[in-house]
Parts: sequence; structure tokens; C-alpha cells
Amino acid sequence: PLRAKHDERSLVFADLTADEYLQVQKYVLKQKDLQISTNQITKPSENFLMLIDLSVPKKAEVLAYLDGKGKKPTREASVVVHFGTKGYIREYVVGPLPNPTSMTDVTVEKYKGTLPIKSRLVTIGEYALLFTFLEQQVFSKLPKLMKESFGVEPGKTLNAFEQMPRGVRAGDRKTWVGFFRDMSGMYIHPVGFEVLLNHESLNASQWRVEKVFYNGEYLNSVAELEKAYNSGKVKKIVYEEPQDYGSLKPRTRPLQLGPQQFYAEGKRFSVQGNHVLYLDWSFAFGLSSLTGMRVFDVRFKGERIVYELSVQEAMSVYGSVTPGMMLTKFLDSSIGIGRFAHELARGVDCPYEATYIDSYRYIDAPGPVRFRNSICVFEHNMGQPLRRHFSDFFHNSYGGMVNSALVFRTITAIGNYDYMWDFIFYQSGTVEAKVHATGYISSSYLVDGNLRHGHQVARNVLGNMHTHFVNFKVDLDVVGVRNFFQTKDMEFVDTPLPWMPDHKAMIPQLVEKQLKTEQEAALRYGTKMPRYLHIASNQTNRWGHQRSYRLQVFSFTGDHLPESQAEERSMSWARYKVAITKHKDSEQTSSSLYNQNGIWTPAVDFSQFIQDNESIEDQDLVAWVTAGFLHIPHAEDIPNTVTVGNGGGVLLRPHNYFDEDPSIHSADSVYIAPG
Amino acid sequence: PLRAKHDERSLVFADLTADEYLQVQKYVLKQKDLQISTNQITKPSENFLMLIDLSVPKKAEVLAYLDGKGKKPTREASVVVHFGTKGYIREYVVGPLPNPTSMTDVTVEKYKGTLPIKSRLVTIGEYALLFTFLEQQVFSKLPKLMKESFGVEPGKTLNAFEQMPRGVRAGDRKTWVGFFRDMSGMYIHPVGFEVLLNHESLNASQWRVEKVFYNGEYLNSVAELEKAYNSGKVKKIVYEEPQDYGSLKPRTRPLQLGPQQFYAEGKRFSVQGNHVLYLDWSFAFGLSSLTGMRVFDVRFKGERIVYELSVQEAMSVYGSVTPGMMLTKFLDSSIGIGRFAHELARGVDCPYEATYIDSYRYIDAPGPVRFRNSICVFEHNMGQPLRRHFSDFFHNSYGGMVNSALVFRTITAIGNYDYMWDFIFYQSGTVEAKVHATGYISSSYLVDGNLRHGHQVARNVLGNMHTHFVNFKVDLDVVGVRNFFQTKDMEFVDTPLPWMPDHKAMIPQLVEKQLKTEQEAALRYGTKMPRYLHIASNQTNRWGHQRSYRLQVFSFTGDHLPESQAEERSMSWARYKVAITKHKDSEQTSSSLYNQNGIWTPAVDFSQFIQDNESIEDQDLVAWVTAGFLHIPHAEDIPNTVTVGNGGGVLLRPHNYFDEDPSIHSADSVYIAPG
Ligand SMILES: [Ca+2]
Ligand SMILES: [Ca+2]
Ligand SMILES: [Ca+2]
Ligand SMILES: [Ca+2]
Ligand SMILES: [Cu+2]
Ligand SMILES: [Cu+2]
Repeated sequence: PLRAKHDERSLVFADLTADEYLQVQKYVLKQKDLQISTNQITKPSENFLMLIDLSVPKKAEVLAYLDGKGKKPTREASVVVHFGTKGYIREYVVGPLPNPTSMTDVTVEKYKGTLPIKSRLVTIGEYALLFTFLEQQVFSKLPKLMKESFGVEPGKTLNAFEQMPRGVRAGDRKTWVGFFRDMSGMYIHPVGFEVLLNHESLNASQWRVEKVFYNGEYLNSVAELEKAYNSGKVKKIVYEEPQDYGSLKPRTRPLQLGPQQFYAEGKRFSVQGNHVLYLDWSFAFGLSSLTGMRVFDVRFKGERIVYELSVQEAMSVYGSVTPGMMLTKFLDSSIGIGRFAHELARGVDCPYEATYIDSYRYIDAPGPVRFRNSICVFEHNMGQPLRRHFSDFFHNSYGGMVNSALVFRTITAIGNYDYMWDFIFYQSGTVEAKVHATGYISSSYLVDGNLRHGHQVARNVLGNMHTHFVNFKVDLDVVGVRNFFQTKDMEFVDTPLPWMPDHKAMIPQLVEKQLKTEQEAALRYGTKMPRYLHIASNQTNRWGHQRSYRLQVFSFTGDHLPESQAEERSMSWARYKVAITKHKDSEQTSSSLYNQNGIWTPAVDFSQFIQDNESIEDQDLVAWVTAGFLHIPHAEDIPNTVTVGNGGGVLLRPHNYFDEDPSIHSADSVYIAPG
Repeated sequence: PLRAKHDERSLVFADLTADEYLQVQKYVLKQKDLQISTNQITKPSENFLMLIDLSVPKKAEVLAYLDGKGKKPTREASVVVHFGTKGYIREYVVGPLPNPTSMTDVTVEKYKGTLPIKSRLVTIGEYALLFTFLEQQVFSKLPKLMKESFGVEPGKTLNAFEQMPRGVRAGDRKTWVGFFRDMSGMYIHPVGFEVLLNHESLNASQWRVEKVFYNGEYLNSVAELEKAYNSGKVKKIVYEEPQDYGSLKPRTRPLQLGPQQFYAEGKRFSVQGNHVLYLDWSFAFGLSSLTGMRVFDVRFKGERIVYELSVQEAMSVYGSVTPGMMLTKFLDSSIGIGRFAHELARGVDCPYEATYIDSYRYIDAPGPVRFRNSICVFEHNMGQPLRRHFSDFFHNSYGGMVNSALVFRTITAIGNYDYMWDFIFYQSGTVEAKVHATGYISSSYLVDGNLRHGHQVARNVLGNMHTHFVNFKVDLDVVGVRNFFQTKDMEFVDTPLPWMPDHKAMIPQLVEKQLKTEQEAALRYGTKMPRYLHIASNQTNRWGHQRSYRLQVFSFTGDHLPESQAEERSMSWARYKVAITKHKDSEQTSSSLYNQNGIWTPAVDFSQFIQDNESIEDQDLVAWVTAGFLHIPHAEDIPNTVTVGNGGGVLLRPHNYFDEDPSIHSADSVYIAPG
């Protein structure tokens, strides 16, 4: 039995429906003068309707509407068009839905400048040309080498995996493409052959190979490689039948089913549209094709606690001596994180009994695509008490309750890696956001010097070390939007004992501070920082303390890229474990679709959000939280990295927000008195 | 269907049976000249058989036996006797069981000195006298005050809760006893009245009240308080009917059962005696009355990985302006951690379907006591994949497996706090040791200045800030006992790009080190330390890398007590996140039964283990791991602290130990190919 009712107002946060995508597409195509194509293999030199996504309405308008003080915000779409004919990218807001009447160019407003066409992601249209190029200009020119070194004969092929960024300076679009065996888990089957492909031109006939890397040596062209190979001037790779160590096929037969979870009396949560109810919790959700999973208007017992909790970015920096991976800095939201939220496997990715939700996306496709069962929601028995006490002094009794919590999950398989994103809602009023990594590591061919960058994990394969950094946006609204950023910690103070003042002892004292500006509140990794971080209201609880939520970050990050590097500004959020900014609708995300391919002139540089060093006293605050882990691959990453220990996240915990632990009112409470 | 067989040799690690306790007790009592009593209310001035516990056999003997190269080690008991008549404590080894023929005094060998009787814990016999003393010398002398201030009339009472250490210097046994309302959760019902009780004398008639604390003021005696109270010279506490906020009784009726876990095809683990089998895992277990839960001879696929994984100590340091808690530094193993492993509530503390195991203990009792269902073992579906990959590039497929793992658990309710201890065995070859805290916080009366030490959590109640530090012993044996301590981390190195040498970039490199001495390998909290810590063998895996297990510590500790404090040496293990020592049978525990009440002259000072700075190259290594969290209590700690976010622990992860992820061979693997 649900205690609350679903609220249709949550639909202001809902992803666009299949119909809405089509309404937008139709309206865009009506602008004949723009000559926009929706053909999936549109060429870079043409104009392509790349993305349609929800344009998240302004916070003030949404709050007015949710709180019954304003009308429903206009429903609008955000549209990205690659103008190959013009050499730029444009972003539009199209609305109102369902019958759009305008298409407004918001590029300059949003990014304070134009977006050069080279900042675009590589579309399926461009990939089609790239693969053709590789076949015609590389593979087919080296039949002998391909056969002798890689066992590639007619009907067989090598697979390509690109490294990013595509070059070393603004204007570059030169991609090292590594080749991998055409087997399961190709990412751990590098063959020792890479080419540097210059695809700066919008005209594919201008593309060229600028360098070739073969078995540790650099050559200037495919022809040069062919010559060197035939004349024995390069050390040859001799094909050996590969072992199928990347396969995920079971190696044993199922023996006996493991533990399963079931709802003996039905589900205690409900999903209607994009609104979820679970015991005292309610929230709206969405799945951005770019940034991924997000929830809005998270309420506990009817009171809004979080306005927005969302994934922002997943970044990795790699080390290698091989040329592609040497430079690799992946910024996944520029490829699309939510885009890769595929169907979840029932009973593995989420429990059998979970509720599975479809999502619809429009990205790099001729129309909206349905992704079946791409989100799951389930209540889970965590296998431990949320709280308990056993008493046999003076009073004999037992009280406790099991920790059952709601999990909201997507898993995004972005190339080699699978990130599992969880938002968890506990009965104690705590929300957790966390990510775990699994899937295949990225690897390189084991050439001289490469062991300085990782460990060998298979024959001729190096698992390259890399960092995982993930950024979350945490827009807590603690008793309204006007909040303060507080820190708490301890310090030992030498104190005379009142009953024997000649004796002193070091006694822990509470140290509370309020950080008042964005720059004070930008807490860098690697620096000493207070142990408790709070978003607080100036309203107090029953005991006179400021009501607050505490941010507790779980993270095992390695070093962040030094700021001396040109690419760093594109990922400047990763400098900070937690940074607090004054909320702005114009600072919606800490990264952007263009940060990967325009990495040297980032469309969004998070550090600019705090550059103006605004006051964060009595303001609407947003916390940007970075978590992650250093990954030094090892043999046990083959075939897949395991989730255990490979993750990070943040707990949002009530701290004097309530007058007591709200879970004491849970119907799951158990009490045993001596019989 | 189990893949392996139980091994009776695990019994060398088994706790003593009820029969064995009685065999030892009988033999001890036969030594008539020692005049030892087993009466539970033996007076401090008499001799008391306080403890019988397993004497853990020497590692070399056990290994020889387990590996089929030696005979079964002699079964022996460790016995603690308080000699009130002599003024000292003695420890004996009694054996061999079942028919003891000797009782050897090992005190000096074990502690390099004698144990003064003042270092003893307070037995039930002493508590009986203390409570009588309080009734006769305090409560009954203040009838008017007790009634007016605390509502205590005939038939009602206040409860006592002691603070430790008992004084400020060696030789002290002066305890601040605080008084609490006789209600559920008395720990959060302080009344503002404390007395400093000198109970140094073994003769209770010599005991005396040395100071009195009432409503923030100090007085020299109960009589002085009475006088001051009656003459209006102290500010009176006026009794008000308390609210029952400490009750754990459900406040609502059960609505609908939450998710439950079940074994559709039966349990995949088996417990026989003290031996557990679970898929590829096996281990022996025990429960020390003092240190608590421990496992030995942990094997994966038949290969020993951990010789011993055990809880060592749980320590807390408090801050307050009230006299008792001002000095409080609790060292729980001196009271007994395992001792308080009480019955687990089925369906709350562990899932309904768990296997529950009884334990038998002999501590501060006239005979062995059975603790029903005090350990639980269960396999749990963690509600997430252990690994998975979804592929739609080049190859379309899905492979994964759910994370089902075995949990081995006790929960020890040591006064106010309940610590949940978990050892978890994952199918990827990882073992986790962790602890979460729940139960009642310790609190003090809200007097002037006390808000510097915590937050108000109820009417007139301060939740005092404190640290939680927990120490684990992790005796990994990686491919045998001869191991090395390695660290790994990353560093950015400015590197010219081979294909364009005029351009440099900062590239992550692997930094590997071997730490060669105990002092190098004592990694202090608050210092920069390498991110990866490994116990390694010089044997290599298939790819030529040293086989190792990695220690990944999860911790949120506050500051450790400064070393300037006399009490610090008794808890010196807490200086280090991880410290590595050369294994010695004589360095079995990092703390002792006497560290609390002999805190200024600790029987075990962990820092001495590394004082000799032995080589840790090619030696049997033991890792001592400290985890914990800073606790600033808040309203949501009422009535109980929740487990979520309040814990710490360590993961022991294979790192090049295997040639690939062992979970790939799990029968739980799932693979889906396009249909
Ligand atoms: Ca700003
Ligand atoms: Ca906010
Ligand atoms: Ca030593
Ligand atoms: Ca060892
Ligand atoms: Cu990784
Ligand atoms: Cu605590």
C-alpha cells in the first residue's frame, strides 16, 4: 500500500517521448533553408540533425510550478545540428511542444562563443567513411602483412578502436586508431598496429594517414610500412592463433541457483511515468542521452531535499608508450553516457523482480530509438540491519530494522567499459549516488618500455594504467533554496581538568566553519579538508541546530592531470573533491558534448563557474562531487574488471535535518522483549 | 552440491567446547594452594578465575600439521586469574586437553612484566559492590535531591554508566560514574549527575567518592552536595517527566513485508564444526571472548591466502566538558568484544535463511555459557553484477554474473554501541573485513560549554563527538609465508611524443616500490601514502608479475590522540592506516585485556612491534589495518545510529595473484548471444 500519490507535475523533467522527438524533427526539417539531413550516414560535409534531447526548464519556473505558484513551464527540446556546409555546430531550443513554433539558436548564449565543426563527435556517418578509408587505404594495401602478422585474409578483418583526444592542439582532428583482433572483448586483443589518421577535412577524400605504428616502430606512411616490411627493415609480428581469453561464455555448467530476492507481499514502490514512489520517498527521473541518469525533486515525507542529482561526466586518463593510448583522455559525456544505457539483463544487472523501464533517445540516428528495459528500479534487502541495539544491562530488549532500500540504476556500456550508476534511497533519509566500473579494460600491445605503464595481462598485451574520475551534480535544497556551506571537524585542545586544574588533557573539540565564497569552497584533491561537509539551512531543528545534509564522498582517485596541460581545462571539475557553486541555469553541466573533440578550447570549463568567486551565503547552492579510483590493471581484469572495490560515490545524509532518525517510524521496525 | 570436503584439521582453531572449558576449570580448581574461586560475585580481594579461552597454537606447528608435515598441535587453554589476595593478575596456559597435566604461568613471557591487579577489568563481582556502594553512599544519602531532580523515589532508581580510563596516571582506579534515567536507551538519558569513585582498594569498605558533579558544578562529597542543594547554593535540576525517545518500539504497525532473500535450490555453503565451505572458498573460524571474530586458513581453490584475519580492537576517544566523558577513551577488547556477541535477530541482523551458529564462552562467569545463534553465515545476492559487459560494436553479446557472496557475521553490543563485524568472501577471490556501528550514542548532560563537543540531540542531552578506530590483523600468506611488501602508484612524467619529439605531454607512469623494514612500512594516517599496497610473493603469475594481494582500506577516521598523551601508547596501532610487521607468535594481538585499566603502562604497546625495525623482506608478514570514522552525533542518531555511512574496513583483492579473474569459472556466469 503506497502512502503517497504520484504527481504528474514530475513530467516537466521527463525525457521527450517518441512522439515529441518526431514533432521536433518534423519542425526542424520544415526549415528548408537549413538543409538538414536525418540520414544516419550523412557525410561530415553535409548538415546533420545530431541530437534531440529535453531542454531542462529553468529552475525558478519549475519550482513555481511545483509549488503551485506558477504555470507549467513550456516544454522545449534542445537540438544539435552539425552544419558541415557552414563549418560550425549550432544548438537550438525548439518549442513549445507538441506544436513547435520557434527554433532559437542558443549557441552563443550557452557557450559564450561559436562551436567549430571540428568539435563535433564522430557520427556514424563519419565512422562509415573512416572504416571505408581504413579498408581501402590501409588494410587492402598491406595484404601480405595483414595475413602474416594478423591472420587477416579475405573475409576476416581487424577492428578499430580510436583514442582521444584527436591531436595535441586546437584545430587538430588527427586520431590514432588502434587495431584489435576481431574477437570477443577486442579491447584486450591489440595487435601492435596503429595509424594516425588525419580527418580534419570535411571532405573524406582529403583524409590521410600521417603516421603508422607497427610493432613498436614509427613509419611515415602505409607505403613506407609495406616497403619496410617486405625488405625486412621492421621487426615482424608473426601471427599466432590467439587464445579466446576475452570471451564471457561460461566455462562451467550452472550448478545450483544462488540466492534470489522476492517481494513476498508485492512491491513497496511504484513507477508511473517518470515518477517514483517508495515508502517516504518520491522523485522524478530522466535519462539524458549525453550525461546519463538524473533525478529531480527528490522528496522525503513530502519535503524536497534534492532538486537535482545527476551524472555529469566520466573521464579517464591513460598512460602508455604506444601512441594512441599515450595521449588518451576520454570524456564520455562528449560521446554520450546515457546514450549507451542498453537493456539490462534480468537477474544479473538487476534482480529478476526489479521494475524495468524503457527509455527513448534521439542521438546520431534517423529517428527516436526505444531502449527496452534500460533503467531498473528495485527495493533491495541489503543483508544487514539499518540499525539495531541489543540490551542486557538494566533493560533486556532488542530493537532493530533491516536495511531495505530502493535502488535506481542504469548501466552504460561506453565502448570497452561498463559503468553501473546507482542512486539509492534509504529509509533513514539518506540518498547515495555511486558508480562502479566493469567491462573490458583498454589495452595496448606489449612493446619495449610499456611495462612502465601497467602490467602484462595476456600474451603480448599490456593493461594500461589509468584514472577514473566521475562527476556528480548535487543540487540539494535544504528547507528551500537559500543555503549555506558548512564544514565540521575535530581538533584536540589541551584543557585543564576542572576537578584537578593542575592536570591537562587533550580533549576533542568540534570545529565548525562556514565557507563563504566559491573559491573557499572549492576543495581540491590532495589538500587537507574538513571531514564533514554540509549544505545547511539557517532554519533550525527542534534542538536549535541548523538543518543540514552532509556530503560524504567515497573515492580512491589517482592524481589528476596537471593544470599545465592544455587538455586540463576541459576536465577542470576533477581538481575538486567537492566544489560549491551558486546555482545558475546557465551552468547546467560541468562538461559538454564538445569537451572531447574541442578539448583545447572547452565549450564548458568548470573552473570558470568559480572564477567569479561569488558569495555562497544564503544562496541556492550546487555541490559538484568528484569520485573515482586509480586503476592499475592486473591479470584479474581479464576478461572483465569486477565491480567490487572499483567504484566511488557520495552519500547525502541528514545531519540535524530531522529531530530524530526518521527510520524509527518505519513499519519495518522490529522489537523483541524478553518473553 | 559442494565441490570440496570439510577438513577436521580446522579444529585446531576452534573455540573451546563447553566440555573443554569445564576440563580446564576443574584442573585449575584442583590447584588448591591457589585458592581460586569461580563464584560470579567473587570479591576483588579474593582470587577469581576470570577467563578461559583457546590458546591459539603456534603458527609453525599449525602449518606443519595442516600441510601434512607435522603432528596435531597440543590443544591448550589460556587462563586469566585475578589474584586479589596477592595483588596481581596471572595468565596461564593449561593443557593438554582434554586431560590437563600442567598450568604454566606465561605472564612474564607474554607481557615482558607483571600485571598489577589494578589493570584488571571490572568484574561482575566488583560491579555488585559498586552498585551497592552507589545505593548506600550516594542515592540513599540524597533522598530529597534524587526525588526533586530525578524523580527517583523508593522503587525507582538511576542507572550507572562508567567512563574510562579510570584516572589520569598509573595506579589510578578512580572512575567517573555518570547517572542515567532508568529507561530504554539509558545512554541517551543523562541526568547531569556524576560521581568520581575511588575504588583502588581491593577492600570495598575503603572505597570513597572523591568528587561530585551536579548540573555543571563540582563538589567534594555527597554531603557537600546535599548541603549545597538544601541551602540553594547549587542551581537545581528540576525533574520533568522524560520523553521516551530512546525506545526502539515500532511507532507504526507493519504494513507490507519488504524484500526477502531465499535459496531456491538450497544453500551453496556448508558449516561443519568451525569449518565453512562456500564454492571455491574454505576457512576455519573462531570467536575470541576478548578480540572477537576471527577466521584462519582461508583458502581459495585449495590454496591458502590468509592465515589469520581477525578483529583486534575497537577504540573511541570522546570530547566533553562533563568530567566522565571528558577523559573517555574506550578500548573494547579490554572488556571483551567477542564476549558480547549475543543472539542475532533472524530477519533483521541477518537474513531469515542464514545459518546461525552457537558459541560457548567462559568469561567473568561461574562456568561456560552458551550464546545461541551468535554467529551467522549466509550467501547474499548483493543486488548488482560482479562483472558484466554489453557489446554492440562489431560483436553483439552480453556476458555477466551476479555478485553473490558469503557473509560471516557477528554483532557485538558493547554497552551502548553495537558493532556489526562482517567478513565477506567474493567469487572473484576477494575477501572483505568491515565493521559498521549502530546502537546508542554515548551522551552527556547539556551544561554550559558542552556544545563545543557535539550537538544537542534531545532535551538537555548532548551527543558527544568521538572517534571510532578499529584494528584488524591481516596475516596474508601469499603463496607461502615468505612475502614482500610492495606499493604501487602513478606519477605524471613529462614525455616527448615519439612521432613528434618537439611536443611533450604528461603521461601517467607506474611507480612500484618495495618497503623493506617495519618502520618504512608503518604508514601513518595524515601522511601521503601510495595508493596501492600489496603483500607479494616472489613467485610470478603466468605473465611474469609477482603474485600479490592488495589491501584497499575504507576509512573516514578523525584525528588520533596525540602521542604526547600518556594514554596514547595503549592505542598506538591507531597511528597507522596500515603497518606491516614480521610475524611473531608473541605478537598475537595489537592490544590486550589490560590496555584499558592499565592504560598508562600498556601490557601491549603495538608501536613496540615495529620499534626493532626488522626486515620485512622475504618474511612472514602481518598487516595491521586501522579503519574507522569520525562521529559528530546529530539528531538522527536518536534513538540509534544507522549503519549506512558509519563504518570502515579493508578489501583483500588478488592482484596478479591469478592469471585471470577466477570468477570467469563461476557456474553463475551468464552469456546471451543475439537470438
Ligand atoms: Ca560562480
Ligand atoms: Ca540548491
Ligand atoms: Ca618487529
Ligand atoms: Ca603472512
Ligand atoms: Cu579502469
Ligand atoms: Cu559513534
